[in-house]
Amino acid sequence: MTETVDGIQSVVVERELACPPEKLWRALTQPHLIAEWLMQNDFAAVVGHRFNLLGDWGGVLDCEVLAVEPNRSLSYTWDFAHEDPAYALKSTVTFTLTPTPAGTRLRMEQSGFRPHQKQAFHGARAGWQAFFGKLEQVAARGD
Amino acid sequence: MTETVDGIQSVVVERELACPPEKLWRALTQPHLIAEWLMQNDFAAVVGHRFNLLGDWGGVLDCEVLAVEPNRSLSYTWDFAHEDPAYALKSTVTFTLTPTPAGTRLRMEQSGFRPHQKQAFHGARAGWQAFFGKLEQVAARGD
Repeated sequence: MTETVDGIQSVVVERELACPPEKLWRALTQPHLIAEWLMQNDFAAVVGHRFNLLGDWGGVLDCEVLAVEPNRSLSYTWDFAHEDPAYALKSTVTFTLTPTPAGTRLRMEQSGFRPHQKQAFHGARAGWQAFFGKLEQVAARGD
Repeated sequence: MTETVDGIQSVVVERELACPPEKLWRALTQPHLIAEWLMQNDFAAVVGHRFNLLGDWGGVLDCEVLAVEPNRSLSYTWDFAHEDPAYALKSTVTFTLTPTPAGTRLRMEQSGFRPHQKQAFHGARAGWQAFFGKLEQVAARGD
């Protein structure tokens, strides 16, 4: 967790995975693989591409690709529109891949949680732990 | 899965759980237990009570309790507001508990998926399988 002076918080998850950056990049950018560890989607690794992430329970996130550096970093918006400002979320997710002797260190930062959005913030902390667990399996399988 | 003449589809999941209806009812109606198997929430087992279910990734469902029959049945709306009609969801979730010699048969029906909402429908089928798995653990623990 990081916190900036205006109180905007980030969720940060960092883990070393036993697969090379190229395999991890596939799992982060191929729609059918993203669907296995994150959510159904119409993602494409093209800056400016708008896409949706679809939760299993009917919810939808509005996203746009901000930056793509193959095998190294990926960034997209992760927004949720809601009339109640406690629930409306404007955030950015950034993945950074660093090769290591054993595989790849993956860092994910989701920034944009406002001080009153404690539930979304704590939910994201739990959610990303679960997403990372599944991502590791999908990336290691490498099909 | 069931389908009505106007094409509105339901997701149905039915499973026998090794715990008495009273324990299962607790897991279905106590907010701190619901949070463990479903989502963070401000649920109360009172007809007309409005509440939200909060996804780990920032999404929010708008819900209202429709029917409460302790240890036997529970029904609430499960709506998701979105400007795109493909994503906007108006559905109803109904749990029905039937005692069996080994425990309780639990039936969940989520009705309201329109023919063009294939993604939400398939997502819900996968989602409820996962929710039931966690619910079974929470109910069996019985604290």
